[in-house]
Amino acid sequence: MIAVLKPGTTEQQIENLSNWLRSQGLDVHISRGSVHTVIGLVGDTSKIDEELVESLAIVDSVKRISEPFKSANRKFHPDDSVISVGNTTVGGKDFTIMAGPCSVESEEQVMEIAKAVKAAGATMLRGGAFKPRTSPYDFQGLKADGIEILLKAKKETGLPIVTEIMNANHLSLFEEVDVIQVGARNMQNFELLKELGRTRKPILLKRGLANTLKELLMSAEYIMAGGNENVILCERGIRTFETYTRNTLDLSAVPLLHELSHLPVIVDPSHATGVARLVKPMAMAAVACGANGLMIEVHNDPDHALCDGAQSLTPDAFAQVSAAVAKVRGALEESK
Amino acid sequence: MIAVLKPGTTEQQIENLSNWLRSQGLDVHISRGSVHTVIGLVGDTSKIDEELVESLAIVDSVKRISEPFKSANRKFHPDDSVISVGNTTVGGKDFTIMAGPCSVESEEQVMEIAKAVKAAGATMLRGGAFKPRTSPYDFQGLKADGIEILLKAKKETGLPIVTEIMNANHLSLFEEVDVIQVGARNMQNFELLKELGRTRKPILLKRGLANTLKELLMSAEYIMAGGNENVILCERGIRTFETYTRNTLDLSAVPLLHELSHLPVIVDPSHATGVARLVKPMAMAAVACGANGLMIEVHNDPDHALCDGAQSLTPDAFAQVSAAVAKVRGALEESK
Amino acid sequence: MIAVLKPGTTEQQIENLSNWLRSQGLDVHISRGSVHTVIGLVGDTSKIDEELVESLAIVDSVKRISEPFKSANRKFHPDDSVISVGNTTVGGKDFTIMAGPCSVESEEQVMEIAKAVKAAGATMLRGGAFKPRTSPYDFQGLKADGIEILLKAKKETGLPIVTEIMNANHLSLFEEVDVIQVGARNMQNFELLKELGRTRKPILLKRGLANTLKELLMSAEYIMAGGNENVILCERGIRTFETYTRNTLDLSAVPLLHELSHLPVIVDPSHATGVARLVKPMAMAAVACGANGLMIEVHNDPDHALCDGAQSLTPDAFAQVSAAVAKVRGALEESK
Amino acid sequence: MIAVLKPGTTEQQIENLSNWLRSQGLDVHISRGSVHTVIGLVGDTSKIDEELVESLAIVDSVKRISEPFKSANRKFHPDDSVISVGNTTVGGKDFTIMAGPCSVESEEQVMEIAKAVKAAGATMLRGGAFKPRTSPYDFQGLKADGIEILLKAKKETGLPIVTEIMNANHLSLFEEVDVIQVGARNMQNFELLKELGRTRKPILLKRGLANTLKELLMSAEYIMAGGNENVILCERGIRTFETYTRNTLDLSAVPLLHELSHLPVIVDPSHATGVARLVKPMAMAAVACGANGLMIEVHNDPDHALCDGAQSLTPDAFAQVSAAVAKVRGALEESK
Repeated sequence: MIAVLKPGTTEQQIENLSNWLRSQGLDVHISRGSVHTVIGLVGDTSKIDEELVESLAIVDSVKRISEPFKSANRKFHPDDSVISVGNTTVGGKDFTIMAGPCSVESEEQVMEIAKAVKAAGATMLRGGAFKPRTSPYDFQGLKADGIEILLKAKKETGLPIVTEIMNANHLSLFEEVDVIQVGARNMQNFELLKELGRTRKPILLKRGLANTLKELLMSAEYIMAGGNENVILCERGIRTFETYTRNTLDLSAVPLLHELSHLPVIVDPSHATGVARLVKPMAMAAVACGANGLMIEVHNDPDHALCDGAQSLTPDAFAQVSAAVAKVRGALEESK
Repeated sequence: MIAVLKPGTTEQQIENLSNWLRSQGLDVHISRGSVHTVIGLVGDTSKIDEELVESLAIVDSVKRISEPFKSANRKFHPDDSVISVGNTTVGGKDFTIMAGPCSVESEEQVMEIAKAVKAAGATMLRGGAFKPRTSPYDFQGLKADGIEILLKAKKETGLPIVTEIMNANHLSLFEEVDVIQVGARNMQNFELLKELGRTRKPILLKRGLANTLKELLMSAEYIMAGGNENVILCERGIRTFETYTRNTLDLSAVPLLHELSHLPVIVDPSHATGVARLVKPMAMAAVACGANGLMIEVHNDPDHALCDGAQSLTPDAFAQVSAAVAKVRGALEESK
Repeated sequence: MIAVLKPGTTEQQIENLSNWLRSQGLDVHISRGSVHTVIGLVGDTSKIDEELVESLAIVDSVKRISEPFKSANRKFHPDDSVISVGNTTVGGKDFTIMAGPCSVESEEQVMEIAKAVKAAGATMLRGGAFKPRTSPYDFQGLKADGIEILLKAKKETGLPIVTEIMNANHLSLFEEVDVIQVGARNMQNFELLKELGRTRKPILLKRGLANTLKELLMSAEYIMAGGNENVILCERGIRTFETYTRNTLDLSAVPLLHELSHLPVIVDPSHATGVARLVKPMAMAAVACGANGLMIEVHNDPDHALCDGAQSLTPDAFAQVSAAVAKVRGALEESK
Repeated sequence: MIAVLKPGTTEQQIENLSNWLRSQGLDVHISRGSVHTVIGLVGDTSKIDEELVESLAIVDSVKRISEPFKSANRKFHPDDSVISVGNTTVGGKDFTIMAGPCSVESEEQVMEIAKAVKAAGATMLRGGAFKPRTSPYDFQGLKADGIEILLKAKKETGLPIVTEIMNANHLSLFEEVDVIQVGARNMQNFELLKELGRTRKPILLKRGLANTLKELLMSAEYIMAGGNENVILCERGIRTFETYTRNTLDLSAVPLLHELSHLPVIVDPSHATGVARLVKPMAMAAVACGANGLMIEVHNDPDHALCDGAQSLTPDAFAQVSAAVAKVRGALEESK
């Protein structure tokens, strides 16, 4: 960490600050410029609050040199993490396709979609049982019954299932769920993250609508600090001024997260755009920039889905996406 | 709700859609233009999912005419809500000043600050016992002990207290807390909002960093739909591209929220800007545009606070703000 | 256009508004709901100022049904525009790769890079002669001399050239330039757009950092309204809260612009990300979601470039991108 | 400037970099930490391109210590700038109120409004003759005729006038204009800024919709570097995700710009919000946080204005704002 001091800082003030910093166990290097004096701190600066130092009357600005995330950091874990999920893996060389309806509506619906997406190449079944909705008057999901239905579909098709948790008190319902999803709105629900850190379940952690990549990795760190290293990151669009799409899919997050972290990165083009017509091109783009997988909404009757039908593909359209993914991955492999 | 159909929609398609909409209990008005046909829906459209209708192959776009929030809506509740908090009220003619440290650190600290801010005109004591921190390695608050300390300060000074909840399972600890705060990161933690809706405690609901005013009101609606009408809204800055401030304080939210809703509106200039030097000017601005109150961080030793010292005022600086607030309020009163 | 009136609007007020609208040459359809009355306007509403109508005391909100851009609109021009540029074309089936240095620095530099990028598959040479820089103290480009150097490279290699204009008074210098670029900061320099509309030169119009796709198309419309239909759109990143990248590349713009308009769409991954390591993955993603071409910065000595070296590729790295583009395009072709 | 090197950088690489930096005339201080080596540069670093250094293979990140703006910087010019405009001044103790119609429509209109706003306390008359419009099909202003009308109103009322320039070629038309406005869309039209730097006219420089305060000051610097120190800054709202207002007025810009620069700061609540009802509260807030003045749209017939009527006040409403400004300024003066 480096602190740039304001012009006019006295020697006594520099001395006081240095003493305090040394009392925190740090080595202090002072370098005097013509206008500014700069203090370099060497040692474990993770305990030092950057904003506190920046607030001191004599400090102009502060720069942290090392990233504050450790467990998720590729610097200390150069190889890609590969996470086992049922009979499949996420990360590394395998490509994951999570597909299924936005909301679980009925056993018939889920079973039909599960079979269709499995036939088309999906490696995991997704479906919402607990639904975060902006309005208290909107459909909130089938809840425990929804999870039961997903588990039946898992038994029938063999596909591992991924579904969202909204309340740590519901954890017992998720015992047979293969991947627990944390939605964008709960990315900084730190109490929930801590509870999930106490399990050993794979967690799909979605980026919040206004969260930086650094914050996403710090939220992964909350889970990993509890001992659960099975975290899968998911880019699903951020909030910007553009109104043609629901959110703006930030695909540069994919190579950046790979650079910063060893965790797998999945892209959800359905929620990001909110428009079914954009799912295929954005899925192709996600594959092309190195995503480890996709999460795609598929509905057997998108025109009458209870939730988010606007962004769902039909099983046929999904099968085309799945086939195109394989082609593009082949081309990328050749051009390495 | 109005649905604009795409050019080339056939009469049969319009008929099918109309029939489906009528089956949802709505009256359907069809108006044919030279290019577009427009369908107007009359009746209770709150059950109709706007995005679902927009997703239909024949629909170009949809416009919802009435706001989806009801309990919080000024249209159905023209008078300002005034919420009783201990021996004081929030909303209406009284002006609320919540002041205190970012984090509760010790009994001495809280007691000293509580007396100072009371003497300077604060009407409520704030202080963080449970702290939402981006990093799992940062100080997480004194938790239950912190609430105990706040309650002692309440007993000593008579000031009602406001402190943040992060987990509904902690509710029993908040029994003597006067106002429960929901932080920006939990504004769409719907499970927490529902639980708070079951209490009758006043709730201070902070706007999320990337949430619209409509979403803030929908989150208030979650609490009110449970029967708890004691919601206080709080603007605390939104996330933008500007980097000189931590967030961008959106003061136009104050008159807009007053127009849309009858709930009181508080402004937190400390968290919004993250810079102590900006607290006074932004507090004055908030008063001038009609806020019902302020939430201000005060620390007896800002240079060494454990958390967010950068944005805290000294008790003396706070006293100046408090005095200036009274002057500006007087001037506004005269110029009505 | 549809105007939703406020509850409580009197018949007389509706009558007055209707009369005024009819006097503007529009047909007026009135539809009365239980709460709101809605006025539908049929006819040429492009002369009606949406904000003016929305400002009327009795109007709650307004919705424009047809897009305000005409010449750029795919609805009135269903086929892709293909624009001739020297011996090549932009749009349709051909793929364009514009490559070259950020700034023209010397004849040797440009000649070396031009030959290298041509050999690697570039179809056009880019290079900045007039440079828009945030600071007046930064290098502003070689100006007219820079254009001379580009023209020599064009003569030597046969590659058409694209370079940025910042001032309509410089137009005479651009006579032999094949494509004139309008930079992001000038996307709404309407006076410049009008002047370019009077030429018949192909114009590469870059999206502004905070401009919506609709605004980009309206700026294209400024050029096209002057009679110059040779407009190439370019997505180059928008400004968001994320700080790891310089801007956030909005790739969903590619399929959306194809849907809204018949104009070709190019992507510039170099400026969008500002990081050379991200150029290849983002270029692949742009190809995969349907871009008609790429604009890529290539430098023979990126570590010492005068401007924006951070985002430049070496010729070798560019050759790898170019080869990978061909592979991915082949895969997409197969999976259609 | 400080450059943090990557772990594993060799002594030879550090030596090479240091030599190159010294060849640019800088002193180089090297400080070795346990993980990172840090290079501090002392001397005139304004010629060093921060992004170039950051792009070097061995560099992890770079921090510039001194701000890149000089003429506008309060550090080198501690006193407030006060700019003479006709018989009035902008900055310092005087408060400026620029009022008038969005667009100049006719002599009668302008004359009537000019007299009304003068009577109500305006110190300057504003009005658009050249209008930047998103659409080429919208009203583009009366142009030279509009300026003639404003000059007549100036002669009649004695009010100095402020009006927008969009093209440096029009400069001769602005000879008797008192303050030349640069609109938000032209804030980074560097060619226009340079031309205005060659005049000695006061320039009202509006902040761009997606521009940081640093960029605003760098654009002021373009004008000042040409020798024209008469720059007035104007905050007029930035683009965010919120849709209830046209833009988000960033009032924290006011105290921050005062801290960073000695130039006067004006606030335009009319364009920022786009809603007449919000003009008064936002004007009061701007005064309360220390703005040197306001720019307010006033129309004699807002319901039928040709442009932006939605945000205009009637002369009566303006008079109320003007009176309230005086009261709040009095209260602030007392509470200093």
